[in-house]
Amino acid sequence: MSYQPSPSRLEAFSDGVIAVIITIMVLELKAPRENGFAGLLTVAPTLGVYLLSFFTGIYWVNHHHLVDRLKHVDHVVLWANLIFLFFLSLLPFFTNYMAEKHIDSFSVAIYVASLLMTALSFTVLQKCVGWRMRNADRADPEEIALQAAEVRKAIISLAILILAIGLSYVHPSLGLAAAALVTVLWFMPTFGVRRTG
Amino acid sequence: MSYQPSPSRLEAFSDGVIAVIITIMVLELKAPRENGFAGLLTVAPTLGVYLLSFFTGIYWVNHHHLVDRLKHVDHVVLWANLIFLFFLSLLPFFTNYMAEKHIDSFSVAIYVASLLMTALSFTVLQKCVGWRMRNADRADPEEIALQAAEVRKAIISLAILILAIGLSYVHPSLGLAAAALVTVLWFMPTFGVRRTG
Amino acid sequence: MSYQPSPSRLEAFSDGVIAVIITIMVLELKAPRENGFAGLLTVAPTLGVYLLSFFTGIYWVNHHHLVDRLKHVDHVVLWANLIFLFFLSLLPFFTNYMAEKHIDSFSVAIYVASLLMTALSFTVLQKCVGWRMRNADRADPEEIALQAAEVRKAIISLAILILAIGLSYVHPSLGLAAAALVTVLWFMPTFGVRRTG
Amino acid sequence: MSYQPSPSRLEAFSDGVIAVIITIMVLELKAPRENGFAGLLTVAPTLGVYLLSFFTGIYWVNHHHLVDRLKHVDHVVLWANLIFLFFLSLLPFFTNYMAEKHIDSFSVAIYVASLLMTALSFTVLQKCVGWRMRNADRADPEEIALQAAEVRKAIISLAILILAIGLSYVHPSLGLAAAALVTVLWFMPTFGVRRTG
Repeated sequence: MSYQPSPSRLEAFSDGVIAVIITIMVLELKAPRENGFAGLLTVAPTLGVYLLSFFTGIYWVNHHHLVDRLKHVDHVVLWANLIFLFFLSLLPFFTNYMAEKHIDSFSVAIYVASLLMTALSFTVLQKCVGWRMRNADRADPEEIALQAAEVRKAIISLAILILAIGLSYVHPSLGLAAAALVTVLWFMPTFGVRRTG
Repeated sequence: MSYQPSPSRLEAFSDGVIAVIITIMVLELKAPRENGFAGLLTVAPTLGVYLLSFFTGIYWVNHHHLVDRLKHVDHVVLWANLIFLFFLSLLPFFTNYMAEKHIDSFSVAIYVASLLMTALSFTVLQKCVGWRMRNADRADPEEIALQAAEVRKAIISLAILILAIGLSYVHPSLGLAAAALVTVLWFMPTFGVRRTG
Repeated sequence: MSYQPSPSRLEAFSDGVIAVIITIMVLELKAPRENGFAGLLTVAPTLGVYLLSFFTGIYWVNHHHLVDRLKHVDHVVLWANLIFLFFLSLLPFFTNYMAEKHIDSFSVAIYVASLLMTALSFTVLQKCVGWRMRNADRADPEEIALQAAEVRKAIISLAILILAIGLSYVHPSLGLAAAALVTVLWFMPTFGVRRTG
Repeated sequence: MSYQPSPSRLEAFSDGVIAVIITIMVLELKAPRENGFAGLLTVAPTLGVYLLSFFTGIYWVNHHHLVDRLKHVDHVVLWANLIFLFFLSLLPFFTNYMAEKHIDSFSVAIYVASLLMTALSFTVLQKCVGWRMRNADRADPEEIALQAAEVRKAIISLAILILAIGLSYVHPSLGLAAAALVTVLWFMPTFGVRRTG
C-alpha cells in the first residue's frame, strides 16, 4: 500500500496551510475612517489581537515536526493532523469575530475556546504519534521521554486555556493575557520539558 | 525535449494550489451581526458547509500522489491535472454560493455538481495515468491492479455524487450527507480497494 | 559572493507566488443576487473570464523552468524574473476589472494589454537566459537552439496579443479568443518549436 | 534537543509567508467606478504604491538566505525571524491604509515607519546571525566580513528610512522616493558591500 503521504510531505503541506492562515488574517485589518493618529489608535486593539493570532498560528510550525518522528503516516495520524489544521484554519474567523465585537467578554471566550480546540486536536495528534513511537522497532527511549514531556506540557496549556475562558468574563484582557501566556510558553520549548539524561 | 515539469514538481505546485484553495475559504466566513451565542448559531450552518469543503478539498492531497507513479509528465497528464485544479479552485465560490442561498435545494445541487466535476476530472486524470503505467516498461502488476481498483472506487464515488444531486431536492441535508459520505470513503483508502496478493 | 538565490529556489518562490495569484482570483467571484439557474447564468461570463485567467496564469509554471537552464542567478535575471512576477500579479486585478465593466471593449483591451506586458517581461527574461547560456562554458547547441525557438514563439505570441487589443474593439469576444489562442499555443509546447536533431 | 526547525525549513516557511504577503496585496486593488481610461488613471497612484510594496516585500526573499549561514536555528534566531515576518505581514495593511488616505503626508510617514520597523527587525536578525557565526567553529573570515558589510548597509538603510519619514511631511512623493531608494539599493547587492580579498 503506497497510499499514505510521507511525513515530510504531510509536514510541507501543513506548513503551506499554516503560512496562508496566518498571512490572510491581515486582509481583515481595515483602514480606519478617521484620519491621523487618532484614527490609527482606533485600530490598535485589532492590531494587538492580530499580533496574538499571528504568533499563536506560527508557533505550530515549530512544533508539528513531531510528525517527522514517525516512519510513515497512517490514517489515524492523517485524520488527527487534518482535524488540527481545520481548527487552526478557523483562527482568522474568530480573530475577526472578536475584533468586530469590540473584544467583549463573550467574543474573547469564544476566541480562546477556538484556541483550546486547536490545542486539544494538537494534543490528540501528539498522543497518536507517541503511541506509534512506543510501538515502533526503532523506539529511542530519549525521544519517547521527550515526547511524553511535550504531552504533559500540552495538557498544562489546555488547563490554562480553560482557565482563560473563565477569566475573559472577569475582564477580556485577562483572558487574552492567559492565551498569550500559552503562546509564550511554547516559544520557550525547554520550559517545562525536562531533558532526559 | 525538456519541456515537461517533473512529477514531483507538478505535485508540489498542485499542493500549493490546494493549500491556498482550502484556506482562503475561511475569508468568506463573516462575523454575524447579532451578539452572543444566538448570533454564532446563525453562522453554524455556514461553518458546517465550510467543514465539508475543507475536508473535501484536502483529501485530494492524499491521493494525487498518483502522479508520482509516472516517470515523466506528458501534455495529456499536464492538461488533465490543470483541468482538475481548475474545478477544485471553484470550491470556495460554490461553498460561498450555497451559504448565501441559505443552503436551499438548488444551491446544494449546484455545489454537489461542482464536486462531481472535480471528481470526474480527477477520474480522467487517473485513467490517463493508468494508461501510461500499463504502457511503461517498468509496469508493475501490483501497482497497476491497485490503480485499477482506485479507478473503480472513483467511478462509484461519481455515482454517489450523481445520486446526491437528486437527493438534494428531497432535502438539502440528504444531498450534503451523500457528498460527505464520498469524502469519508476516500479517507478510508483501503475501503473498496482490494489489496493485490 | 553568495548573494544570489539558487535557480531552484528562485523557481520554488516563483511557483509559490503563481499558485497564490491564480487561486485568489476565485475570491473575486461573487454569488449572484438572483436565485436559481437564471442567477447563475448572470455569473457565467465572469466564470469564463476566470477560466481564461486561471489557465493563462498557470501556464507560466510549465515554462519558467527556463531558469533551471542557468548555473546561477545573476542580478539581471533576478530583476527580469521579479518584473515578470509583478505583471503577472496584476492578473487578478485586471480580470476583476473586466468583469466589473461587463467585459466591454475597453476593459478587454486593457486586460489583454496586461497579458501583453506579462508576456513581454517573460520574453525579456528568456532573452537574458539565452544570452547567458550562449556565454556559459557548458553551452549545449541543442539546448541553445531550443531556447532560440522558444524566443521566436514568444515573439509570435506578442504579435497575436497586440492584434487582440485591436480585435477587442471589433468585438470583445474576438479579443478574448485571440488571448485564449496564445494560452492554448503554449500548452502545446512542440507547436512552433522545431526539434533540433 | 530536536526542537528547532532546520535553517532550510525556516527559510522555506518564511518564503511561503512572503509569497502570500506580496500577492494578497493585489486583492486590495479595487476596480474604479468610472469607465475608460480616465477611470483607470484614478487607480494609477494606488498601482504605483502597490508596485513599491511588491518590490519591497519581495527583496527580503533574496537576502534572508542569511539564515542558511547558520548550522542550526536557536530560539533567539527563531524569535527574531518571526518578529521580522510579523512586521512584514503588516505591509498589505499599511499599503492599503496609504491608498485609502489618498497618499497624504501622515499616511506615507506611517507606511515608511512600518518599512522601518521591518528593516529594523531584519537588522536585529542579521546581528543575531553574525554573532553566532563569529562564535561557530566553522567561522570563515570572508563570510564574517561579508556579513558585517551587510549589517553596515542595513544601518544606512535605516537612516534613509528615518529621513524618509521626515521627507514625507515636505512632500509625500519625497518620502516614497526615499523608501524606493532603499529597495533599489538592496537589489544591487554589491553596492556598499565591499568584497573581501
